[in-house]
Formats: sequence, C-alpha cells, structure tokens
Amino acid sequence: MSNTSSEIRYRVGDLIEYATALFTAAGTDGDKPATIAAGLVEADLLGHTTHGLQLASTYLGELESGGMTSRGEPEVVVDRGATVTWGGRRLPGVWLATKAVDLAVERASTYGVATVVIRQSHHIACLAAFLQRATDRGLMITIASSDPAVASVAPFGGRKAVFTPDPFAVGIPTDGDPILIDISASITTNGMAGRLRRGGKKFPGEWALDASGTPTDDPNALFTNPPGSLLPLGGAEYGHKGFGLALMVEALTQGLSGFGRAEAPTQWGASVFIQVTDPAAFGGLDAFRRETGWLANACRDNPPVPGVEAVRVPGQRGLANKKRALAEGVALYPGIIDALEPHATRLRVTPPRPIGG
Amino acid sequence: MSNTSSEIRYRVGDLIEYATALFTAAGTDGDKPATIAAGLVEADLLGHTTHGLQLASTYLGELESGGMTSRGEPEVVVDRGATVTWGGRRLPGVWLATKAVDLAVERASTYGVATVVIRQSHHIACLAAFLQRATDRGLMITIASSDPAVASVAPFGGRKAVFTPDPFAVGIPTDGDPILIDISASITTNGMAGRLRRGGKKFPGEWALDASGTPTDDPNALFTNPPGSLLPLGGAEYGHKGFGLALMVEALTQGLSGFGRAEAPTQWGASVFIQVTDPAAFGGLDAFRRETGWLANACRDNPPVPGVEAVRVPGQRGLANKKRALAEGVALYPGIIDALEPHATRLRVTPPRPIGG
Repeated sequence: MSNTSSEIRYRVGDLIEYATALFTAAGTDGDKPATIAAGLVEADLLGHTTHGLQLASTYLGELESGGMTSRGEPEVVVDRGATVTWGGRRLPGVWLATKAVDLAVERASTYGVATVVIRQSHHIACLAAFLQRATDRGLMITIASSDPAVASVAPFGGRKAVFTPDPFAVGIPTDGDPILIDISASITTNGMAGRLRRGGKKFPGEWALDASGTPTDDPNALFTNPPGSLLPLGGAEYGHKGFGLALMVEALTQGLSGFGRAEAPTQWGASVFIQVTDPAAFGGLDAFRRETGWLANACRDNPPVPGVEAVRVPGQRGLANKKRALAEGVALYPGIIDALEPHATRLRVTPPRPIGG
Repeated sequence: MSNTSSEIRYRVGDLIEYATALFTAAGTDGDKPATIAAGLVEADLLGHTTHGLQLASTYLGELESGGMTSRGEPEVVVDRGATVTWGGRRLPGVWLATKAVDLAVERASTYGVATVVIRQSHHIACLAAFLQRATDRGLMITIASSDPAVASVAPFGGRKAVFTPDPFAVGIPTDGDPILIDISASITTNGMAGRLRRGGKKFPGEWALDASGTPTDDPNALFTNPPGSLLPLGGAEYGHKGFGLALMVEALTQGLSGFGRAEAPTQWGASVFIQVTDPAAFGGLDAFRRETGWLANACRDNPPVPGVEAVRVPGQRGLANKKRALAEGVALYPGIIDALEPHATRLRVTPPRPIGG
C-alpha cells in the first residue's frame, strides 16, 4: 500500500520538541520557545491547520528579519488589578497571549472578572488554542484580536475595506466537555479566499463584494486592483449584524489597548483583548455548569435537519481531533514540514521522523 | 389635508408623564414609574417601536395579574465589588436594568470593568435604550438578555428550538456620537415573523426552518404544530456563527446568573448580563476615542455600494430619530395609545393630547 501524505503522522511530543528547538535556535529566550511550540501544535490538534505549525516558518522568518522581537518581557502600561494593559513590543503573540491568559486566570480568582489587553503584539495565531487554559479551571474566557495594519472587510453598505475579519473566541465550561467557540465578524477570511482561488473554486454563497460593490461568489474579486472586499457576517441581506460585531471587536482590541488604525501601522501584528470570568463570583460554578451543560445536551440531542447526521456543539469536533491526535499522532496538513526545512537547515535542527518512518 | 396617523405627534414629556402616571396608579413604588416610563419612551425615540410604549399595556396587564412584582428591591445574591448578582424577584425589567447599568457605571470607575447579572428579572424591553447612560460618561457597555422560558431559535444543524433570539447591545463612545449596536444571535425575531405573517409577506431570505428542518422564507412555518424555528445568524450557509453567539449569550445571562433553562421556567422573564468598561483603566479614554472615532469616520466616509446613499454607523439613524422627536414630538406607531386606553380608564389616568390636538 502506498503511504499518502494524509497518512503521515507525527507524535505530538516530537512536533513540540522540534518547534521548541527551532524557536530556541532562532533566539527567543526563556519559556518562549516551548510556549510558542505548544500553542501552535495545540491549534493543529484542534484541526485549525492554517493557524498551527503552518505559521512557524513565517514566524521564524519574522524573527530573522527583526519583524518579531525575540527577547524580553511586555511593557506594563497600566495595571489596576482587574484590568491590565501591556505593550507587546512585537514579541511572539502566541507567547504573549498565553501569558496574558494565565494572568487573567489568576486575577479572575480575586476580582471575578479580569481583563488584559495587549497593543503591538505580534500575530497570536489560533484563538481557540488558548481557551482550555481557562475552561479546564472552571472559568469562562473571551479572546478577540484584530490587526490594525490590514483591512479586508467593508462596513455594511460600503465597498472599501476597513476591518480585519476580527475573530473572537469564547470558551465555556460545562458539566462535560467545554464549549469552544471560534468565529469572526466576517463570513470568511482572506486565507480561505486565497485557497479557493488557487483551487479554481467559488465561495458557497455571495460572501464577497467586487470592487464596484456588487456581491459575488468569486474569490478572484479580492485580488483585483483596486480590490474587492469580504462581506461582514450576514452578507448583503443582514450584514449590519456582522458590521456591529466588527466594531465591537475593534473597540475592545484597538480602542481599549489604545493602538489601532488611527496610528496607521504598517507592520503585521495584533491588538488583543482577553477576558476571563469566574462563575464562582456570580451565581456559582455548579449553577453555571448546570445551565451550560443543559444547553450543550439540548443541542447534541436535537433532531437534525435533513442531510445532517447529528448536531455538533462548537469545539466538539476539535476536541475529538485532539483526542485522536494525542493517541495516534498528528496528521499535519501537507507541506508544513517541508516549509520548515530551510529554517531547520539554517538553524541546524533535526526534523522529527513520522511515526513508523 | 387629512391628518394621517403617522402625523400624530406627542411631546416627549407628555408621554413620559402619562406612562409614569399609569405605572404609579398600577402600584409600582419609588422611582419605578418614572424610570420605566423614561426607558420605554427612550426606545420609541430611538425608533425601536416594538420595544417602547407598545409594551406598557402588556406590563400593566402583568402588574394586574401579579406576573410582574410591583414593589421593593432586588435581592443581592453576591456582591464582590467588580461583580454583582441580583435576584430580580420579577420586578419591572426596565427599572432593574436601569439600576444595574447605573451600578455598573459607578463600580467601573473603581474596578475598570464592572459586571452585574440579574436572574428572574421581568422583561427588559429595548437593550439599546440603556446604552447612553454609559456612553455619555465615556464608558463602553455591553448588555445581553435571554428568556429561559421561551425557545424559538434552533441550534445550527438542528430543527428544534433551544434559544431565544438572544439579543445583545454594545455602546461605544467615540469623539463624536456614540456607536449603538443592537443585534441578536438569530437572523430575525418572532415579533417580525408575526408582523410579516399578518401582512401576508415573506422574509427577505430563507431565515427560518419549517418543522421538517427545511429552510424557508415563509413566516407561517413558525406557527405550525409542531412549529418551525428561526435560523441562527448565518442561516443554512454558515449558521454555526449565530449558534456560537447564542451559546455565548445564554452562558453570560443564564449561566452566570445561575437561572436558566435547566430550571424549566414557565413565566415570561429575563436573565440579564450587563458589563461596563472604563477605557481610562486601560490605554486611556483619549486613545479609545481616537480609535473608535477613526473607525466611525472611516465607515461614514466609505464609498457606498450601488443603491445605497451613504454608509450609516450603528445608532446613527436612531440618534437622528431621537433628535427630531425631542424637537418635534414623537410619532408613535399606530395603536399604541389605543392599547393603553383600557388601562387609563381602569386606573383613572388622563391620556395625553397630541401636539396641536
């Protein structure tokens, strides 16, 4: 039997070790290499293949060029206990966000709700990958991120991009597995548009506008000059809803952190909002879990619409992926290990061998 | 010239005075009558005609039947400074939410972020009507509400309703007018479905499922036995996004307050989440206003799509309505004054006269 690329699996520990060695050799200090490596691999475990190890080669390139800061701590702009603002100094975003989540988790036990915002972080990769750091401790968490240097989503009724897709993720503990929500204010992303375009495919609906402002299912519309734009959630029918979400996310990230589009930044990066909520400071964790567990069950037990086998709660598929990957190894998206090869050679790090390889 | 109903206008003060007299005569104590009256009229000023004075006759009926509690204070379940949980005792929701917003505004100046949740509130009417109590003070605010006794929205992939539309509103101060966002996790509401049905009209798109789970634009599908359901934001194409929002809103409202669907309540009511954020506790109010003002301008100045005159920022039309109503009087939606007549007669309150009437 031939061994197709999708059957090549790696041990989780081997991938983390490899990425740790690469980021160590690239000069990041302290716990940064291990934290970045674990964060990226966590995204792959959950099935977010575009926001996992695929980003490692780009980050290593940013470290080489100086676009990403390799050493030191974030600047504490304000610390008022329940609220913290950091200057991220373009440090690795996965490491910054992990540290910020852990700080918010710690502070939430004192204040009930703790909020950390970061300006001038580097890219933070997969938002969903941070959620279980809070939900495993019986805490609810919200993470939002925007990149003020990039615009691809137009306001509802307009045709010039103002926003990034403005992702936000919410982790909700239940009496069983946590609910892990990872959505955005736009229908789709530039990454997806590029992937469909390369494959000669269309969007499943009119998810974009061409440069004239006409709805289209053609991803090529985003690559014209001037370019088209991505439609906010709700599209041409009720896109005022996604428009509202985009404004909310950009206010939480760029507004609160005090760094955004008004500064007209040009470097790839992120303004980040992280909030951790302790149900014990409200009606109690048992009551919280009773309600959220009831909801999760009512969804999973829901009679499905024609053509659907079963209703899945957000995060359910990702957690099943993760369980399998931990047991059987990770099947990486094709090309990821190849993309890291030049960095491995340059940094003299030995790539991992696949399971059975 | 004939005087059509849309031309009948009332002075804002007269309407508030009328509603105050009705709620006083109906037995609500202290500042409740004036607060409920001002809150409902505020919704009419902003153009939310289904959630303003139209609700007064229903509320007066609930007071008469005992479904709404008329006197006293909420029970303080927990108060930890930055986080407060109230038992609402089915007190008037407009009054409870107003008090909770004012408490969160006060606490935000100490803690940076203050969160108040309410369980067993009565209905809180129009979420957008509370936002300017925070934004006028340079504070950001989020309000979410759900009714655990009612279900009309199915989870994505399912066909049995689990959620209410789960509205949430966000108020964002800028360097000019505030941004006032008022959206929900579903595409549309039962109220809108009922209005279209009575008018023999369809939804503008496939915004509902019939009882078999097939997408439809027919509002009658919601009134069959068994009934159909409203689709989450994103519909059959990408309704996992609205599904995530619904879970988020129900966790914040029912999960944190500790009262929800797990208790299988049968009385109309609300679980409520209110959070006020002080930008001064983060990167500063000036920086916040600079970013949000830049965004609002970039949207208003955006080149519109064909058929649209200009891009409007959320709240822009409502604030223009309000300005006009304060200057020229309020043109109430037809039937509202008529619906209050039986209560006015019963409670011996004199209805207001229209301007020039």
